[in-house]
Amino acid sequence: MEKGQLLYEGKAKRIFATDNQETVWIEYKNSATAFNGEKKAEIQGKARLNNEITSLLFEKLKEKGIQSHFIKRISSTEQVVKRVSIIPLEVVVRNIAAGSLAKRIGWEEGTELPCTIVEFYYKDDELGDPLLTDEHISLVGVATPEELGRLRDMGLQVNDVLQELFLEIGITLVDFKLEFGKDEKGNILLADEISPDTCRLWDKETNEKLDKDVFRRDLGSLTEVYSIILSRLGGKEAWSK
Amino acid sequence: MEKGQLLYEGKAKRIFATDNQETVWIEYKNSATAFNGEKKAEIQGKARLNNEITSLLFEKLKEKGIQSHFIKRISSTEQVVKRVSIIPLEVVVRNIAAGSLAKRIGWEEGTELPCTIVEFYYKDDELGDPLLTDEHISLVGVATPEELGRLRDMGLQVNDVLQELFLEIGITLVDFKLEFGKDEKGNILLADEISPDTCRLWDKETNEKLDKDVFRRDLGSLTEVYSIILSRLGGKEAWSK
Ligand SMILES: Nc1ncnc2c1ncn2[C@@H]1O[C@H](COP(=O)(O)OP(=O)(O)OP(=O)(O)O)[C@@H](O)[C@H]1O
Ligand SMILES: Nc1ncnc2c1ncn2[C@@H]1O[C@H](COP(=O)(O)OP(=O)(O)OP(=O)(O)O)[C@@H](O)[C@H]1O
Ligand SMILES: [Mg+2]
Ligand SMILES: [Mg+2]
Repeated sequence: MEKGQLLYEGKAKRIFATDNQETVWIEYKNSATAFNGEKKAEIQGKARLNNEITSLLFEKLKEKGIQSHFIKRISSTEQVVKRVSIIPLEVVVRNIAAGSLAKRIGWEEGTELPCTIVEFYYKDDELGDPLLTDEHISLVGVATPEELGRLRDMGLQVNDVLQELFLEIGITLVDFKLEFGKDEKGNILLADEISPDTCRLWDKETNEKLDKDVFRRDLGSLTEVYSIILSRLGGKEAWSK
Repeated sequence: MEKGQLLYEGKAKRIFATDNQETVWIEYKNSATAFNGEKKAEIQGKARLNNEITSLLFEKLKEKGIQSHFIKRISSTEQVVKRVSIIPLEVVVRNIAAGSLAKRIGWEEGTELPCTIVEFYYKDDELGDPLLTDEHISLVGVATPEELGRLRDMGLQVNDVLQELFLEIGITLVDFKLEFGKDEKGNILLADEISPDTCRLWDKETNEKLDKDVFRRDLGSLTEVYSIILSRLGGKEAWSK
């Protein structure tokens, strides 16, 4: 497999073509960003941590029957995945009130939700990734009602798997963001990444934040807490540099 | 009927008790406010215009079978209505992209929606009246899924009646906000007001704004455009002071 031309450079990853039309090469970056790009930093080791955590989680999800774009990790900061056309919706699954939900409905951060909810945000940096209702989604036409139902179901399935997985290693899965894409045949696949950049993960005993909120809110060393996640997940290179 | 003690003073109206437990006395104020109270003005004649327009519209809705809290107009700025316990949701019905919807989805103001949509906002000034999805509403518990379905249906029914009514007088009904409440028996009634404060109304020929956007965006005299609405609706005192 050969790394081809750069197709897209995002805030956290670079996407390259490969010699196979059906796959892309993802290179994780050491950049950390928050608040729609307003806060930025270069953090040595972040690329490796997110690449390894994401690879590990997509593998665990696969074992539980959840298909994703993930094919294989090919270096400490790179992976090869199925090329998809990303559905421009951020699918957010929440078990506990935090972040924008806590603000929106006025609940204290940490309040357990009586039931898991799924939210959809429009992946559009210029619009500031706004919340969309099902009716808005139907207006903008980025997913049919059937597809939306499928995204909701898949989000909840991923939650069931990840919630249990994290619970076993003493971590509460507060909320997370997923992206989905369609392959050439129109199949909907889980895509992008699942890492402490895209999940809120709290230590079950201490409630210590082990995710990007450490960076957003200046609570400590990002690599230290991401390393804890990788280590507890059983990642081999967890404590090395 | 006697006007009793002040129960609530809002930005646009005062609500008084009456000697009947089942009714309240609404007094419209001359205050105009926008942007969650940030912009304010006293505008002579506004109370009368909104009281008369609301009374007229609730009467027309009643003729078409839509029950509301409205009982009768008792002076140029006052009406008596059934007392309800307000459901803390602003029910917004939209036919054309404008205001926050245009911003949210990035559509140009004035774009006709392929189908009418209904949005729900949490009536909570401290939270800034945030948009809620059905799942958020179920979380905060302000309406059951059945009640929500009823609010959506009633919103669309009101739209059917008002859209036709305004079309007949050369006005495009762009969008509007409704409030609903429950009476003692738990019946859901349309409540609050329907006026150029709560609707976007554009002249069908010129697209001139004939609603509160004139105040929000400093486009001219509020009373002049509200008078046009009252006059076209057939209100008797339209052009008097
Ligand atoms: N399998 C895939 N095929 C094609 N594109 C993908 C795939 N998985 C993820 N992507 C896209 O690649 C980009 C990853 O880059 P990154 O996460 O850095 O983007 P970003 O800065 O979050 O910006 P944005 O997500 O708004 O484009 C995203 O646009 C993501 O949707
Ligand atoms: N039939 C009714 N019975 C009881 N309360 C009502 C009735 N109709 C409307 N209301 C309530 O009376 C108040 C009207 O005041 P006004 O419109 O000035 O309030 P506001 O400034 O918009 O503030 P808010 O709506 O946030 O309370 C609103 O709270 C409205 O919900
Ligand atoms: Mg991203
Ligand atoms: Mg009001």
